[in-house]
Amino acid sequence: MTRLAPAAVFCIGTELTRGEINNTNATWLADRLTAVGLEVSSIDVVADDAGAITSALERLSQSNVLVVTTGGLGPTTDDITSATVAHWLGVRRLRNAVVLDGLVERLARAGRQLTASNAQQADFPEGAEILKNPNGTAPGFAVSRQACRLFFMPGVPREMRPMFESYVEPAARRLVQGAQHQIRLRCFGVPESKLNDELSGLEAAHGIQVGYRAHFPEVQVKLLALADTLDVAIARATAAARDARARLGSAVYAEGELELPQITGELLRQRGLSLSLAESCTGGLVGSLLTQHAGASEFLLGGVISYSNQVKVAQLGVEPAVLEAHGAVSAEVARQMADGARQRFGSDLALSLTGIAGPSGATAGKPVGLVYYALSTRTETLVRDVNVTQRPREGVQLYAAWCGLNLIREWVLGTKAP
Amino acid sequence: MTRLAPAAVFCIGTELTRGEINNTNATWLADRLTAVGLEVSSIDVVADDAGAITSALERLSQSNVLVVTTGGLGPTTDDITSATVAHWLGVRRLRNAVVLDGLVERLARAGRQLTASNAQQADFPEGAEILKNPNGTAPGFAVSRQACRLFFMPGVPREMRPMFESYVEPAARRLVQGAQHQIRLRCFGVPESKLNDELSGLEAAHGIQVGYRAHFPEVQVKLLALADTLDVAIARATAAARDARARLGSAVYAEGELELPQITGELLRQRGLSLSLAESCTGGLVGSLLTQHAGASEFLLGGVISYSNQVKVAQLGVEPAVLEAHGAVSAEVARQMADGARQRFGSDLALSLTGIAGPSGATAGKPVGLVYYALSTRTETLVRDVNVTQRPREGVQLYAAWCGLNLIREWVLGTKAP
Repeated sequence: MTRLAPAAVFCIGTELTRGEINNTNATWLADRLTAVGLEVSSIDVVADDAGAITSALERLSQSNVLVVTTGGLGPTTDDITSATVAHWLGVRRLRNAVVLDGLVERLARAGRQLTASNAQQADFPEGAEILKNPNGTAPGFAVSRQACRLFFMPGVPREMRPMFESYVEPAARRLVQGAQHQIRLRCFGVPESKLNDELSGLEAAHGIQVGYRAHFPEVQVKLLALADTLDVAIARATAAARDARARLGSAVYAEGELELPQITGELLRQRGLSLSLAESCTGGLVGSLLTQHAGASEFLLGGVISYSNQVKVAQLGVEPAVLEAHGAVSAEVARQMADGARQRFGSDLALSLTGIAGPSGATAGKPVGLVYYALSTRTETLVRDVNVTQRPREGVQLYAAWCGLNLIREWVLGTKAP
Repeated sequence: MTRLAPAAVFCIGTELTRGEINNTNATWLADRLTAVGLEVSSIDVVADDAGAITSALERLSQSNVLVVTTGGLGPTTDDITSATVAHWLGVRRLRNAVVLDGLVERLARAGRQLTASNAQQADFPEGAEILKNPNGTAPGFAVSRQACRLFFMPGVPREMRPMFESYVEPAARRLVQGAQHQIRLRCFGVPESKLNDELSGLEAAHGIQVGYRAHFPEVQVKLLALADTLDVAIARATAAARDARARLGSAVYAEGELELPQITGELLRQRGLSLSLAESCTGGLVGSLLTQHAGASEFLLGGVISYSNQVKVAQLGVEPAVLEAHGAVSAEVARQMADGARQRFGSDLALSLTGIAGPSGATAGKPVGLVYYALSTRTETLVRDVNVTQRPREGVQLYAAWCGLNLIREWVLGTKAP
């Protein structure tokens, strides 16, 4: 087995210490470094202040093999990272001619001329490795201090992330003794404790580590294999994933980066099935989730946001007597909403949702969080219910939306629960 | 003028150093401490590790007057904050009888019995101040070390935030020499650079500091007054806010915590105006934004997600000849969608949106990001367009949704641009 080498994430920026923006870079870097097989010992954030930057660099470089830094590489007077690092290392800054030419060219394309502020983005500590930035003006750089390698990258995520993948990730992999491979199973509809029970003994059986990450409304299961060679690590993780999928069945909706709304949409597109929606308690959320990704027009015809009873009757054909007898939040109304949407839109499938998002609206026998949802198809109409407890209004809506999307997925794949 | 006292934010949790969750606590605390008038010198995150916690506490307590800590107060073996702090200070841990009784009672209400793990949540370093937690089982605590006051709170945001407001904020205010008052103006539809131009000279005129925070799709303008007494600080900030509002006009949609969707919804509810929606490129997002907040049923009747042309015709009465002549993304179709929704739903107002969210779909003269939106009322139908450039698909959708909501707000208030 391998031993985890310690790494540090270090973010520079007064906009961070003032709480003006969320530090998504830190989370992203910590996740990626952990996935490579390093142990992130700390995340540090300081303002654009030379003293604070220097003392953090000194401390972090003594106890880590890798320090990954973001921020302070721009053209303004706040951007002091490069000068501060040079001073800390006791070296000069040198202007890099290749980088300078690139800057001039880039500015010229935007119809601008090089200023002194821009030019300083071509100054680097003597001996530094330059990290190219195809997505912005500020290149990054890397230096060494005793046993520690330090990378400095811009704070803009779309510039930082490709730079990390080109330069830092390969260097990080070389620091990990042995090899590792991770597979991430995305699960929905089963609580973390039950997943944990179902996967009992998986670690010992396959020589892997199992981790759970609750990322509402889903839970991700991480299967991490550490071994002497990459082939062995991949084989172990793959065998463990096969075993886990056999145990968890339809609860695993995907591996990798895509979330359920995209998975479901892509499935409909591939199968050539059209969809319409009838949303009450979710108020348009299912439509919004499906249309956040390009290509939704290939399967989504449209929908009705039937927030009031009058709209359920007039736009979806729900019978007033059924509303009266069972209430708007009922299996019967969910069924009529879905059937009505499918008929009126002429779609292959229609999904409906009606429930009590809260915080008020509960009645006897119908608590806050109770949602009925139905899937109308050419052959059958499935009606389900879920009770989303201990979640605020937005949580009830999001969980219910995913339940509906998951029912579509299971029906299309033929894996739906009876 | 006052001098800013240094404070540190310190978050404990392996789920953070592994990048499993975003550290929203750090951002929230840094923002609130800055607003009180302290200078946040650093944000530190370490794993659930006694050595790492101890060395951070030692370092942070030497250079700050306040350290605000979250995490590690739960009942599991990972939760070592209290024991680690006691060891660091060289004091015993004592079981607090009042806290223990509260734990027993809380567990009994959930039908559970006290376990040894639960009971340790009633153990605190000798001499610590107990911070009550009405929203969970783990109380917080505060201790002093030389000139530094250290607060320890749970990591769950809905438990941490009220605890901060009850205990930490008042203590933080006492550390600020002099007084300060901040007013936050929420602006939409005007870029930061233009706001900056319009507010030129505001700082000198009122003796305040002006800060900008771009929080897409809005920009917040922070007016901070520092003075010897609170009365003077409030008077200065208030005068500056009045001046700023006079300069910026309708671009300022609110002061305080509520966002545009809630502001617009509340306005409709107060005026007794009903609304329906016809959403094409936003796919249900406007409905979703309005129904995230309780009380939407008092003004929102419903809507149509008219993602396809056939739905625009069948469900909203858009004329096929108009679609053919002008295209789905046009002022004419936006107008017919809004008028059609208002008639079919019988609402006082109807909002429509149709545009090109991207990344594909652009045509000659109609770039990605172009959105037409219309507000149909009993007396007139207003049609507007916006071109949301340099934003991904979700950004185009969100900005367009806010444009629509802002048009409703301006029309209801009678402040709409001609």
